[in-house]
Amino acid sequence: MKLYIGNKNYSSWSMRPWVLMREKGIAFDEVMLRFDSFSADSQFKQAIAAVSPAGRVPALVDDDGLLVWDTLAIAEYLAERFPEKALWPTGRAARARARSVCAEMHSGFGALRGAFPMNIEARLPEVGARLLAEKPAVAADLARITALWTEALAASGGPFLFGDYSIADAYFAPVASRIRTYALPLPAEAAAYVQRLWATAGVQAWEAEALTEADFVPEDEPYRTQR
Amino acid sequence: MKLYIGNKNYSSWSMRPWVLMREKGIAFDEVMLRFDSFSADSQFKQAIAAVSPAGRVPALVDDDGLLVWDTLAIAEYLAERFPEKALWPTGRAARARARSVCAEMHSGFGALRGAFPMNIEARLPEVGARLLAEKPAVAADLARITALWTEALAASGGPFLFGDYSIADAYFAPVASRIRTYALPLPAEAAAYVQRLWATAGVQAWEAEALTEADFVPEDEPYRTQR
Ligand SMILES: N[C@@H](CCC(=O)N[C@@H](CS)C(=O)NCC(=O)O)C(=O)O
Ligand SMILES: N[C@@H](CCC(=O)N[C@@H](CS)C(=O)NCC(=O)O)C(=O)O
Repeated sequence: MKLYIGNKNYSSWSMRPWVLMREKGIAFDEVMLRFDSFSADSQFKQAIAAVSPAGRVPALVDDDGLLVWDTLAIAEYLAERFPEKALWPTGRAARARARSVCAEMHSGFGALRGAFPMNIEARLPEVGARLLAEKPAVAADLARITALWTEALAASGGPFLFGDYSIADAYFAPVASRIRTYALPLPAEAAAYVQRLWATAGVQAWEAEALTEADFVPEDEPYRTQR
Repeated sequence: MKLYIGNKNYSSWSMRPWVLMREKGIAFDEVMLRFDSFSADSQFKQAIAAVSPAGRVPALVDDDGLLVWDTLAIAEYLAERFPEKALWPTGRAARARARSVCAEMHSGFGALRGAFPMNIEARLPEVGARLLAEKPAVAADLARITALWTEALAASGGPFLFGDYSIADAYFAPVASRIRTYALPLPAEAAAYVQRLWATAGVQAWEAEALTEADFVPEDEPYRTQR
């Protein structure tokens, strides 16, 4: 299987299936399409257009050539293809809730995502404090994520959202990264979950590789002019 | 099962599971939470907060009390609960592609959705023509949807995107509504698909009930001050 991704430092969507497959021991070849910009004539957009008509990363190409695009569809595809890996929680109710939080993340939290682009290498605590104070919608997004985590952890008993590591944890890995970069304050239980999630082998491997990158992508850098 | 929805005239997300269940003969009780506004102190937000912590419609409550929220999670839940209804295409590759286009719709097409809010009763062809001409991102969204439909119909042979009616068709029903309201131009095959989709029993029932509503919701009406 080939997984097409963007820069590890910036590409929050790419991070999800990558850490999921790493964590669950699903073998794949990575193909990185480096971000120059996202304009139609960029090298990135031309490279991904040759792979996927949706024009975005991540995209998965299975050994038989089948293309699956979009993070949530890739996750469902992998869950079906590797049932023994239990990518979704095995209990019916937990699985329904895990899918609910992933779908909510997939289309939601626009204020948080817009204010705090993923940027693994950066440390911007003053930006975090300022925007949380100035933008109620950003604070509301963070409060909803915290509530959702707290409720899931209380119901499952942890250590991950629905007990064992699942797609839902991979789905929130980029949020954990933003919490670190922008030093967003969290209640103790949610902060401990971020620490556990960040310590997983998949996330650690992604972070280590992100830190070797040197690209500076202006479209993902509203707060800096260089590293 | 109880399905919580918003106004049929306006609530594009609510439309998807409703037309899906109607079309596939899955029985449910509808609970409509009428939109007054989406501010935190609105009646709508207070009513939905009592049902779902995500604070949005649609939300599904199964007979055992299990809450499933967010459209895509509801669709997956129904697909699991009613395997005999074949809500997803039965072929592995078609199912992967159907999930890809639904996930792409779930988080994408922001320009189109922002410019053209669903408004079943309204007819605003001049708004459609103007915004398509003025906003390249809106035109690009429409072009991508057209390409995606054309490719899926060519691969499956129709009559629906992946042959038989599936979740993917329900997912695009609100787009079909926008194409009608704003008179958006389409190539012949895509236009014929919109007609077939609009003629389905589920969509026809939704439209008929939408047309009985009299609410005017300012947040969903950027182009009118009254009906
Ligand atoms: N819903 C898509 C979103 C993917 C996405 O937006 N990826 C970004 C990189 S993180 C991208 O490819 N952007 C290119 C563009 O916006 O044109 C998914 O989950 O795969
Ligand atoms: N991703 C959600 C989106 C649902 C959504 O945004 N629903 C709108 C009505 S169509 C809503 O409840 N809005 C309330 C709000 O934005 O506060 C889903 O698919 O269910």
